[in-house]
Amino acid sequence: MKKNHLLAIAMTVALGSLSFSANTFAEPSSPKLNEYVDWRVLSVSHRNDKNTLRAILGNDIAIKASRENKTKPWPEGSIIAKVVWKERTHPNWGAAIVPAEFSAAEAMIKDSKKYASTGGWGYGHWVNGKLEMHPEAKAKTCYGCHQPMKDNDYVYTFSAPMKAKK
Amino acid sequence: MKKNHLLAIAMTVALGSLSFSANTFAEPSSPKLNEYVDWRVLSVSHRNDKNTLRAILGNDIAIKASRENKTKPWPEGSIIAKVVWKERTHPNWGAAIVPAEFSAAEAMIKDSKKYASTGGWGYGHWVNGKLEMHPEAKAKTCYGCHQPMKDNDYVYTFSAPMKAKK
Repeated sequence: MKKNHLLAIAMTVALGSLSFSANTFAEPSSPKLNEYVDWRVLSVSHRNDKNTLRAILGNDIAIKASRENKTKPWPEGSIIAKVVWKERTHPNWGAAIVPAEFSAAEAMIKDSKKYASTGGWGYGHWVNGKLEMHPEAKAKTCYGCHQPMKDNDYVYTFSAPMKAKK
Repeated sequence: MKKNHLLAIAMTVALGSLSFSANTFAEPSSPKLNEYVDWRVLSVSHRNDKNTLRAILGNDIAIKASRENKTKPWPEGSIIAKVVWKERTHPNWGAAIVPAEFSAAEAMIKDSKKYASTGGWGYGHWVNGKLEMHPEAKAKTCYGCHQPMKDNDYVYTFSAPMKAKK
């Protein structure tokens, strides 16, 4: 029995270390601030109507779903983060558009029950490092804009292929 | 003694899981193939002369250096990966340029001694999941193109601010 108990501890410690691995370089004093900076890439985009560049990142649940092509619908707990920068021309390469100043970090969170009135997605943004969800009225305006993507679970982002086909 | 032995196993399992944590979703059979897919974002770009979008990612050494603003020069062991996609217009948002098919994944590796003849950087690309470095002659053509960035340690990428200023 003691052996089994200690093995259970071993497994718990192992799994615990896994779950914190994504934040290796986050602020040590407040590991959950701006947590998206350690998330992996789903895609990128350039919005010519907004003069912004974006990186679209996913939490572990979203990245796993994306890689397994299981995003219709995205699984519960998925968070998609959109990091937005104002654009500028690269000072040494005139044909390259690159990020200027940081503009915003926004989020969609999948929780079909909590956000049933807005397609199963909550909408929010990071403020002072913390993710704040918009109230329902504002989220409904987000949801309205996402209607054209109903067949893609209301998500504009298509996961970009990250590697060559075999 | 048995207790200590099992606790030692627990620690080993915990540390082992930590060291592999960056590759949680990589191919289980060959955890180092296309390792850049799990790296974090340094920046993005849109090359209008090549009609491509790019995500520029860094290995742990590069990300740490970037966040500490210690990239002149980048530290030994830094790897900068550039994931390149052909561009397309988003089918439901005409002003948005988004990735189409995967084009290439290229790398710069900082090793001042090994790559002394090309500014301290080796140049390469991933082929069948494995990073292959270019021979010196080809790397010198890369190096030639990077000359305008001498004051930025021969790197075109400027790390993009990932969060709001405090």
